[in-house]
Amino acid sequence: MDIPVDHPRYQSLRIRERLAQAMQEGIVAPEGLCAHGRGESFDYLLGEETIPSAREAARCAAALFFAAKHPVISVNGNTAVLAASEIAALQKATRAMVEVGLFHRTDERVLMITDLLAAADVLVLGGEAERLLPLSHDRAFCLRHGIYEADLVLVPLEDGDRAGALAGLGKAVITVDLNPLSRTSRTATLPIIDEVTRALPLIASYAASMTPKEATAILDSMPDQAWFLQAALDTISQRLSHVLD
Amino acid sequence: MDIPVDHPRYQSLRIRERLAQAMQEGIVAPEGLCAHGRGESFDYLLGEETIPSAREAARCAAALFFAAKHPVISVNGNTAVLAASEIAALQKATRAMVEVGLFHRTDERVLMITDLLAAADVLVLGGEAERLLPLSHDRAFCLRHGIYEADLVLVPLEDGDRAGALAGLGKAVITVDLNPLSRTSRTATLPIIDEVTRALPLIASYAASMTPKEATAILDSMPDQAWFLQAALDTISQRLSHVLD
Repeated sequence: MDIPVDHPRYQSLRIRERLAQAMQEGIVAPEGLCAHGRGESFDYLLGEETIPSAREAARCAAALFFAAKHPVISVNGNTAVLAASEIAALQKATRAMVEVGLFHRTDERVLMITDLLAAADVLVLGGEAERLLPLSHDRAFCLRHGIYEADLVLVPLEDGDRAGALAGLGKAVITVDLNPLSRTSRTATLPIIDEVTRALPLIASYAASMTPKEATAILDSMPDQAWFLQAALDTISQRLSHVLD
Repeated sequence: MDIPVDHPRYQSLRIRERLAQAMQEGIVAPEGLCAHGRGESFDYLLGEETIPSAREAARCAAALFFAAKHPVISVNGNTAVLAASEIAALQKATRAMVEVGLFHRTDERVLMITDLLAAADVLVLGGEAERLLPLSHDRAFCLRHGIYEADLVLVPLEDGDRAGALAGLGKAVITVDLNPLSRTSRTATLPIIDEVTRALPLIASYAASMTPKEATAILDSMPDQAWFLQAALDTISQRLSHVLD
């Protein structure tokens, strides 16, 4: 594709182009492009930077990883294309398992995403997925010894139904989603309202240096879900009030 | 694709599926799916309904069409897929020309979109496009006796650069864009902050019954661009303040 370099949104256009390319290869579902666009809107409203409450959420996420017995990072097509190396660094910092978790699941897509992640040095859990989540449709599939047995699941850019099913199974669910109003953010134990390539390195850097004492202190005073959502909405509201000045 | 009918956002998923299908046929550019996603976010924030200021904008649009000497509706892939029959009805009500105007322009896509519109009884202006807009890249192409000579152009779901170039040529530019902060909305003479299949029938219904006297009165008291943008931002702000209640 031929993107004019003088376009004011050249960087955004390039990222879209990468996703479009990944879609043509079958890695990203077409609906993944729509989802990316929804995220772009909210990032625009948030000022395209990590807001203070999202930084706090990343710190809490690191503490949750620290305390978890069996943490799993669920990676879909969009996350793999946008943030494979960030996933690798986060895995290194948290020793979490990484599992490919898809809404539009086919064996072929799972394989392609696994290869993409492996090329960025992510260790991806393999094996036969089973229909284990309480959902209709192929989005119910996951690995018994991965997401199904996890006590903590990080689901960046997740569908709301799938995030809700995980929370319904009693797992701690950390989401990374730019939309503070999405069902995904609203069903999370800990919603990180931030862009995925900004949020994941932040969790990794907090995790890399965390002590047990720090983790305990953070978890003891961790704000509830509504606080993180409201903080993001307040940021948007404040920005809207003088954006046209 | 296999969309679960029990999904709470089934209708949105179906529309995305239609766009994904059109993309696979080459009618919609992959980036068009991202653009649709951005629109969805803002529609969500607006409550997925026509807000009063957007209704007023549609009334003003009808008056501008009424007063124009050479009005043209510029239709891209997303608009054709989502609203071909609405374009036909609007053309009937305003007697405007319809021209295919694309950011990612190829002769093949122009032909496919022309066919799609013609199948919905839209009369599409044909002929050889020339590089007439002050822009780099293929988005500069348009028809000399269409958009180039128009005094009024309606550009639903338009790229900001392209909308800006049209305004820079001194044309009245009406946009239909759900994002009140987009460069498209901010360069428009009259920004309609609404979903395209809601906005176009509304313009058509106002245009169908408008008298010269009414048109004059509307144009005499037409709010400026900033008023429409601020009204949409205020709506979003108000909704955000109690959306979590």
